[in-house]
Amino acid sequence: MLAAGGGGNVEVGEVMLKRSIEQYGDVKLVSLNELNEDDLIIPMGMMGAPIAGIEKFGYEGEPSQVVRFLAEKLERDVSAVTAVEVGGSNSMIPMVAAVQLGVPMVDADSMGRAFPETQMTSFHLRGVPASPLALIDERGNRCMIEATDTFWAEKISRTITSVMGARSMVATFAMDGRTARSACIDGTITLSEKIGDLLMKSRGKEEVLADLLELVKGGVLFRGKVTDVHRETVGGFNKGSVTLDGFDEYSSLGGKVFFQNENLVFYADSRPVATVPDIITVLNSETWVPITTEELKYGLRTIVVGLPCAPIWRTAEGLEVAGPRYFGYDVDYSPVEERARRPR
Amino acid sequence: MLAAGGGGNVEVGEVMLKRSIEQYGDVKLVSLNELNEDDLIIPMGMMGAPIAGIEKFGYEGEPSQVVRFLAEKLERDVSAVTAVEVGGSNSMIPMVAAVQLGVPMVDADSMGRAFPETQMTSFHLRGVPASPLALIDERGNRCMIEATDTFWAEKISRTITSVMGARSMVATFAMDGRTARSACIDGTITLSEKIGDLLMKSRGKEEVLADLLELVKGGVLFRGKVTDVHRETVGGFNKGSVTLDGFDEYSSLGGKVFFQNENLVFYADSRPVATVPDIITVLNSETWVPITTEELKYGLRTIVVGLPCAPIWRTAEGLEVAGPRYFGYDVDYSPVEERARRPR
Repeated sequence: MLAAGGGGNVEVGEVMLKRSIEQYGDVKLVSLNELNEDDLIIPMGMMGAPIAGIEKFGYEGEPSQVVRFLAEKLERDVSAVTAVEVGGSNSMIPMVAAVQLGVPMVDADSMGRAFPETQMTSFHLRGVPASPLALIDERGNRCMIEATDTFWAEKISRTITSVMGARSMVATFAMDGRTARSACIDGTITLSEKIGDLLMKSRGKEEVLADLLELVKGGVLFRGKVTDVHRETVGGFNKGSVTLDGFDEYSSLGGKVFFQNENLVFYADSRPVATVPDIITVLNSETWVPITTEELKYGLRTIVVGLPCAPIWRTAEGLEVAGPRYFGYDVDYSPVEERARRPR
Repeated sequence: MLAAGGGGNVEVGEVMLKRSIEQYGDVKLVSLNELNEDDLIIPMGMMGAPIAGIEKFGYEGEPSQVVRFLAEKLERDVSAVTAVEVGGSNSMIPMVAAVQLGVPMVDADSMGRAFPETQMTSFHLRGVPASPLALIDERGNRCMIEATDTFWAEKISRTITSVMGARSMVATFAMDGRTARSACIDGTITLSEKIGDLLMKSRGKEEVLADLLELVKGGVLFRGKVTDVHRETVGGFNKGSVTLDGFDEYSSLGGKVFFQNENLVFYADSRPVATVPDIITVLNSETWVPITTEELKYGLRTIVVGLPCAPIWRTAEGLEVAGPRYFGYDVDYSPVEERARRPR
C-alpha cells in the first residue's frame, strides 16, 4: 500500500521471510526510542528492477550476508537492521536479515514509501553518508563502494546492479542509534502491519476501503480497467506506463500512470492529478490488494488511490530530490489530498 | 610499438612519469628473478577508453593511491609494482605509482602488448585471481571488488569505469614474488626501452625500420594513407575502424584496421591478413612512431606492421580469451610472420 507499486515483489519477500522465521524464530521489532545512542544500525534492501527480483531468487543467507559484509568493513557488530523503504519485498528482506543475524528490526524506514533511487531517503536529506555501501549478488560477487556523495553511491551501485542482472542486495547508510532516531521515518513497519490487518478482512468491502484510506489519510483518484501496459527494463529499473479506462461515474474517461519501479505520476484525461513524492497506489478493485508495477497487466480492474507522503518529502529539499521535476515531468507538485475523494 | 595502438595515450603517461621522476627520483627497475618469494607484487594501470584518459587527467597521487588502497585491503605493504600491459600510458603509470610509493617497478607485464579486457592477461591464464580489485576515480570515489572470477571482475570494473566517465585507475591480480615469476611476461619494459632507443634515431630511415622489425621479430603488412576513421565510445571502450589507401607497389589497393582500444584485425582488400593476439601497429610513415587508436585521423601516412605476440597467446587457452573469434571476427588465427614482409 505504501510502496506505490514498487519496493520489489511482495511474494518474494513473503516467501523469504516465512522460511527464515521457521528456521530462526520470530522477528523482534524495536522502536527508534529503544535504540542505544552508540548502537550500529544498518539499513538494507534489494536493489534493481523488481521484475528481475522475481526471476532471480538469490540464496537464503544473502540478506544477512550483505549486512555482515558492511559490519566487517566497519569493524563493528551490527546492533539492529532497518529498512531503506517500506512495502514490496523491501520491508521484509531486512527482517530476513535481522532474524538470520539474531538482531532486532527497527520499526522505521527512510522513505515512508518506496522510491527508486538512493538519494531519495531521509538518510540522505539528514546528511547520513551512503558510503561505505556494501553490494553483493547471488553468485558471490561482492563490492564495497566508498563514494564521494550519495549521488555517486547511487550511480555506481546502480550500474553494478545492472551488469549483475538488474538485482543485488545492498547495505548502506550505516549509522549509530542516536543518528537513526532523527534520520529515520518512524513507525512505518507497524503502520504496514495495521494496513495488512485491514486488507486481510477486506475482499472488496467498500467500508474496509474507507477504513483503509482513513488509516493512511488517502483517497480514491480513479476506478478503471487496465487497457495497456508499456514496460521496459532500462538501466537496472522497470520503467513504463499503464493505461486505464474509467468505469464509474466518478472517474474520467482515461487514466494513465507512469512508473519507474514505483508509480510516479497519475494523469486523468491527460491532466496531472497526483505526483511523487505523494504515494500513488493501484489496488485490485476486487480485493483492495495493491498491485506492484511488475504485476500490472491487461484486463485488471483497479482503483487508483493517492496517499500523502511523509512530511519530509514536502520540504524544498525533499521535492528537489523526489518531486515530479526530478523525474523529468514538467508538472508542479500539489498535495494529493486536495484531489482525492474518500469513499462514503 | 607493442601496444597495438592501445594501452592509453603515450603522452599522458609521459607527462605523469616525468613529473613524478622530478619529484620522487628515478624508477628502480627490477627483474622477475630479483623478487623474493613472499614479496607482494601489485599490477596496476588505467582502465577505460584511452580517449577519455586524455580529457581527464586525474590527480598526481592517483596511481600510488590505488595501489595503497589494495595493499591496505590485503593488510600488507607492497614490495613492487608491475604493469598489466605494456605500451601506451599503461607501461608508464605503474612506474609513476612505483616512484611515488618508493618501491621498484618489475620489468614485466601480463600481455607483452596491450589488450582491452582483464581476462586477456597471463595472470588470468596462470590462475592468479583478479580479486580483490581496487578501482578509484579522479573525484575520490573508491570501489573494492571481490568477484567470483576474472570475467566478473572485468564486467563489474568495466561498468563502474563507464559510469565514472570511461576512465579509472585499477590495481588487481596482487600476487607474491614466487607467483609473479611464473605468471608475468618477462622483460617487456626493457624491450620497450630498446624499441624507444631505436625510434629516437629513426625519423623515417628505412634501415632503422629494418633494425626495429628485427628486434621485435615483425614485418610490414601495408603502407597507406588514412582516408577514413570511424570511432565511437561504447561501454567504456574506444571502438571503430580506420580505412587506408595503399601507396606503394607492395601494398594492395585498400586496407582496413578494426580496433577496440587496441587494433584487432587488419584486412587488405577485404581479406584478413593479421589478427589478435598478434600485434598490429600503425606507424607514422615519416617518423616510425606508433599511432594510438585515439590519434588516428584522416590524411596520416602510415605503415602497418605486424609483430608476433608472446607465446602464451598462441596456446589454445590464449586464443580462446584473446583470439579473433573472441572479439566476434569469423576469422582463423594464423601467425603474422607468415604474412609480413621485412624491408630490405
